[in-house]
Amino acid sequence: MRAVSVVGVGLTQWGKRRDVSLAELMVESAMKAFADTKSLTPQDVEALYIGNAQAERFQEQAHPANVTAEYLGMSPRVVARVEMACSSGSVGVRNAFFAIASGQVDSALVLGVEKMCNVSSAEAMRNLCLVEDLTWESFHGMIPPSGFALIASRYMHEYGVTQEQLAKIAVKNHRNGAKNPIAQFRKEITVEDVLNSPMVAHPLNLLDCSPISDGSAAVILAPAKQARKYNDTPVDIIGSGQFMEPSCNCSNMESLTTWRALVNAAKDAYSMAKLSPSDLDIVETHDCFTIAELIEYEDLGLCKKGEGPALVDSGETEIGGRIPVNPSGGLKSKGHPVGATGVAQIAEVSEQLRGECGPRQVDGATVGMTQNLSGFATHHVCHILRRQN
Amino acid sequence: MRAVSVVGVGLTQWGKRRDVSLAELMVESAMKAFADTKSLTPQDVEALYIGNAQAERFQEQAHPANVTAEYLGMSPRVVARVEMACSSGSVGVRNAFFAIASGQVDSALVLGVEKMCNVSSAEAMRNLCLVEDLTWESFHGMIPPSGFALIASRYMHEYGVTQEQLAKIAVKNHRNGAKNPIAQFRKEITVEDVLNSPMVAHPLNLLDCSPISDGSAAVILAPAKQARKYNDTPVDIIGSGQFMEPSCNCSNMESLTTWRALVNAAKDAYSMAKLSPSDLDIVETHDCFTIAELIEYEDLGLCKKGEGPALVDSGETEIGGRIPVNPSGGLKSKGHPVGATGVAQIAEVSEQLRGECGPRQVDGATVGMTQNLSGFATHHVCHILRRQN
Repeated sequence: MRAVSVVGVGLTQWGKRRDVSLAELMVESAMKAFADTKSLTPQDVEALYIGNAQAERFQEQAHPANVTAEYLGMSPRVVARVEMACSSGSVGVRNAFFAIASGQVDSALVLGVEKMCNVSSAEAMRNLCLVEDLTWESFHGMIPPSGFALIASRYMHEYGVTQEQLAKIAVKNHRNGAKNPIAQFRKEITVEDVLNSPMVAHPLNLLDCSPISDGSAAVILAPAKQARKYNDTPVDIIGSGQFMEPSCNCSNMESLTTWRALVNAAKDAYSMAKLSPSDLDIVETHDCFTIAELIEYEDLGLCKKGEGPALVDSGETEIGGRIPVNPSGGLKSKGHPVGATGVAQIAEVSEQLRGECGPRQVDGATVGMTQNLSGFATHHVCHILRRQN
Repeated sequence: MRAVSVVGVGLTQWGKRRDVSLAELMVESAMKAFADTKSLTPQDVEALYIGNAQAERFQEQAHPANVTAEYLGMSPRVVARVEMACSSGSVGVRNAFFAIASGQVDSALVLGVEKMCNVSSAEAMRNLCLVEDLTWESFHGMIPPSGFALIASRYMHEYGVTQEQLAKIAVKNHRNGAKNPIAQFRKEITVEDVLNSPMVAHPLNLLDCSPISDGSAAVILAPAKQARKYNDTPVDIIGSGQFMEPSCNCSNMESLTTWRALVNAAKDAYSMAKLSPSDLDIVETHDCFTIAELIEYEDLGLCKKGEGPALVDSGETEIGGRIPVNPSGGLKSKGHPVGATGVAQIAEVSEQLRGECGPRQVDGATVGMTQNLSGFATHHVCHILRRQN
């Protein structure tokens, strides 16, 4: 298996994008990623992976890969639209990584996209709820907000965390997102704002939750040995791990507060990278709800089990702290256009390792991690990136 | 890249399956595939690929990978749901093939599924139409039947084919399907039946078209060197090719009657297999409409361009002929549960090469090909299989 690098990244403005169609949104991020390379064009790229969760419901556009190839004028010989709910983009990156690592292709565009704001909030929420098992979960009201509220309640019971501590995660991510020009919410909030925001499902308030968003992200991958031909500051993907629990229904999960799939996915990524959690300079995680980021601290090994709340209080996950988490603003503040999220995480870490993040830059970052999930945290994907020497 | 084999195949009964849920249908094919191996169980398998086009529309069940892992009790460390419209299952097989070929995993389950009969025919047709570009195609009525009717009309203009010749393809496939115990329509038809069936879009009548179906298919892949541990008669996948045209909108296609993406995908598959069309003993193709199978004869190299109609008349694509095409009954008679089709093609060719097809067996077949498409034939996937010596 040969080494693989990120040689181009591009993100659109995230938020409500009523000015463009789904196809135009995809083209916007893709063309920024191509412009980020020295000279690559869509026609040069051999593989195309689309991370998209539900264009057939949000746009009534099935088979988005076809539309993408048409709009970009690509003729890929490896092409797949990958749907893995919130982790769609990360699984696209993972597949593209292996397509290059194995020598199948010499270049790949991974495009993540979701356009969710053209339907009513109620319809958007309904679509999002379909990702849970229709028969055993969503039908009974076990949908993402109630599921993560259950996880938060159980965490409170087992280890103890206060709503204030959860709120601090949202406050941090808004502080970071306020410095990210593409973020949906460029507005700082306070712990009081979170605690006073409407209750969604106890103990989660509205400002504990990530929003409904439009947005797209693109990354271009190439073999590490050829990377400098395309970019002066390539970033290598040195680890990739994925795991799905055999008990995907939350009623069957071994534990609600230790995510076995995350522990396993992270272990594989660390093992491939030959690194440990202490080697990381930054992490982008899936903070769909504040409780998610808390458990991710622990299951990624940034602190011990049960010590997440203390890590929050310590401020060490802030930019400038020991291990900044979600310097981009995370899903909470940057937004969560579902299929785009995983690709955007790779883009953010790449730009951080290139030192191009301006006011939200983590100084001297050389190694970073991304973590994404789907379902009730029963499926996880992790990647580790390092600035190429 | 190491060699890869099919070590287990399983198909459900195809047709209207009101007796089971989507999850139960997937489990049915998967467990048949596991039973077809010597001893493999879902818990042994490292990778899971789901080929499914539209569970979020037909069942309101997004993220079907999660449901599959739960019902089968799997814990894959490589997992993806692949949506590529009618070619979803084939792209799943291709990704699983490369995951094993590259050494990423040592076993993979590819599960194809679609359950389309639980909605009205009108709603099913509407869902199928969403695979074309919403802005430039489906909105204007350019949907699969009208698109393939356009292709047929153009073929008539350029090379000449009669409706009788097209009908003969449907008659052949029904003759084969009548011998396939899982086929949706186990009923022979005549050329007159086709010509007298209701007009769908000139020159295609109802019996020129494949049906709306429920069904699932599963194949289990493993490294060729380990294959006999799992199956006494493994079948090797010796070629894989894929191509998507940069002009996916039918108004931009270079030619309606020579499918550039198919020519390229087949070329890559033949090249990887180091074989030519004359080496094939059987072919399973994507006969969504009779005209599709006709053009596939030519673009796969089974005959020269424009000689498809003569090949039909010669009877050489019948079982017992020079190159039997769609001995399974094809999409036309076996059915077309969209995401399952590509996986079922691999299963049929594997069973043919193992000599297990009873009354529809092609005697002495040792090399076979599968071909699948999506959109207006602007994306194709081909595989070549050979009985392991």
